[in-house]
Amino acid sequence: MAAETHGQVFPAKRLEAFGAAALKALGLPEADAALCAARMIDADLRGVDTHGIFRLNHYSQRIRVNGINLHPKVHAVRENAVTALVDGDNGMGHVVMNFATELAIRKAAESGLAWVGTFNGNHAGAGAVYSSMPLAHDMVGMYMTVANANHMAAWGGVELILGTNPISIAIPAGKEPPVVLDIATTMASYGKIKLAAQKGEPIPVGWMIDRQGKPLTDPKRSSEGILLPIGGYKGYGLNVVIGMLAGVLNGAAFGRNVVDFNKDLATRNNSGHMIMAMRVDNFQPVEAFKAEMDRVIREIRESKRIEGIDRIWLPGEMEYELIRKRRANGIPLAPVVVANLSKLAAELNLSDRLE
Amino acid sequence: MAAETHGQVFPAKRLEAFGAAALKALGLPEADAALCAARMIDADLRGVDTHGIFRLNHYSQRIRVNGINLHPKVHAVRENAVTALVDGDNGMGHVVMNFATELAIRKAAESGLAWVGTFNGNHAGAGAVYSSMPLAHDMVGMYMTVANANHMAAWGGVELILGTNPISIAIPAGKEPPVVLDIATTMASYGKIKLAAQKGEPIPVGWMIDRQGKPLTDPKRSSEGILLPIGGYKGYGLNVVIGMLAGVLNGAAFGRNVVDFNKDLATRNNSGHMIMAMRVDNFQPVEAFKAEMDRVIREIRESKRIEGIDRIWLPGEMEYELIRKRRANGIPLAPVVVANLSKLAAELNLSDRLE
Repeated sequence: MAAETHGQVFPAKRLEAFGAAALKALGLPEADAALCAARMIDADLRGVDTHGIFRLNHYSQRIRVNGINLHPKVHAVRENAVTALVDGDNGMGHVVMNFATELAIRKAAESGLAWVGTFNGNHAGAGAVYSSMPLAHDMVGMYMTVANANHMAAWGGVELILGTNPISIAIPAGKEPPVVLDIATTMASYGKIKLAAQKGEPIPVGWMIDRQGKPLTDPKRSSEGILLPIGGYKGYGLNVVIGMLAGVLNGAAFGRNVVDFNKDLATRNNSGHMIMAMRVDNFQPVEAFKAEMDRVIREIRESKRIEGIDRIWLPGEMEYELIRKRRANGIPLAPVVVANLSKLAAELNLSDRLE
Repeated sequence: MAAETHGQVFPAKRLEAFGAAALKALGLPEADAALCAARMIDADLRGVDTHGIFRLNHYSQRIRVNGINLHPKVHAVRENAVTALVDGDNGMGHVVMNFATELAIRKAAESGLAWVGTFNGNHAGAGAVYSSMPLAHDMVGMYMTVANANHMAAWGGVELILGTNPISIAIPAGKEPPVVLDIATTMASYGKIKLAAQKGEPIPVGWMIDRQGKPLTDPKRSSEGILLPIGGYKGYGLNVVIGMLAGVLNGAAFGRNVVDFNKDLATRNNSGHMIMAMRVDNFQPVEAFKAEMDRVIREIRESKRIEGIDRIWLPGEMEYELIRKRRANGIPLAPVVVANLSKLAAELNLSDRLE
């Protein structure tokens, strides 16, 4: 379990209201502002601090240079009973993905299974937020997206042509927490590498190579570096098929036409995502399935451990505990994050400045 | 590209006829024998030599101790327009998965998308053989299975509770070969480790640990070893969700109830698999999609390489070239494989003894 940082702690509801107020002040319709803030706080509650309220400053920069359409007509351009292609009309990623996920859930409720792809979207926060939405309907969720910047190369390559392209899969359980996988297909994120640089620690061999293909272990040289995939050629392959299913299939960006959303705030991202939802009762009565999930989860958790290891965690279990803890005790934010949000609040003349 | 071994070379058609004759002599109905042999040779043509005709001796041992139902009633026990749960009735895995894949393709042709799960199956050979079947129908294929022996532990664990649980995803292209990912979620297979032992070479740190959780690099100690997942906890998580989607969801084995099919020939495996098929024209006209796939494939292949690297390969591209090569020039088999098959042929009194 990740230790909580010692930053200032805010109730989730306060941060959500803050995010909604800021986005409304930036010009989003009230309902969309509230929805985006809710999905951002979902990420913070899970402990995915890099994909929650932390991003508000970045989103605000895009909005201010008209990089985001504040009044998008998010709609399905192709549709049948079990699939849809959704045009996000360059709206906030959270608005587009929330629409797509609710559509997938409605279709799966009716037909058993649905796959919805999106194009013309934007960064939508943490994948697990969307893959988990079908859980409440006793459905499996699957989410993939093309990352919004390329920090990886092909296997054997040194050109930054691929992103961290993540996949998230959520499976309901009974008394046990649902199993929720949410992984980038690179060994480490840029965030982790920047953290190592701050701490002055080397990064392990296998996280990055330089432009000559040699291991790069000094995180201060990360701008010359290339992220490595999980499992070598295996993670490279997984990364590529995710990019094709979430990007190419939807007519969204993948490869050289991905816009680096950190360097370029204004150009349309054409970010692509996919979400699948499937009812578990296609295969088994819901209660029987959940009981068997609980049994298997306990079997894995209670299997024999390496000496010195306290606990075996199922995918998403740490996050599940963190959600409960942070709902009860609040969400800690690092001082620099509070300062940036506070500055934004002052610019937008919000009543809550956090500080 | 893997160098061809210098074993004896056989035309694919001869090996397929040999496999069909052997399985028929072992008691399979003629059509099922031919189908199993065809799916086995599909694996050999792809270069997945460990999952093709090589396995015939093992299958024959299972059949001889009544570990396989030679006359299964393979049928859907639950079904709607877009999903089905198929009872394999303990038939040959290839028969069960061929049935399930054809069913998924039929449903997807009608409805756009389909997911078929199976239980009561057996080892079905190479995953890419099934994920690739939808390609000819301009569909994406996705396949997952629970491996038939546990050689991996949970992350932080030392109990052999997980298998190599693979995933395979196939995506059509136009003039370029289709993109076909087929990966186990462990860093290495047992086969690779046995090969290193034969050659007297150490295995890299990261492939295996011993029961104390320490790196194991001497492949001669592999019986004490535990395979490691790709990307550490990430691959562990992916492995677990694959096991739940291909196993638990279908009422098939996963975890401690997996039968080690190498050590126990007779006990019903209850092997679980899943196959998904989806028409690409849900999202785009087929030709537009294929053209964009070709463009992206070429972009990745032609991206800047590490000095000394001759070529960047897309997932499944090596296998695609090998299929063409082996169809034209034949399939090489190692002397020990030929000897084992020849021994089986003598026992079954086949006209073709290979030697």
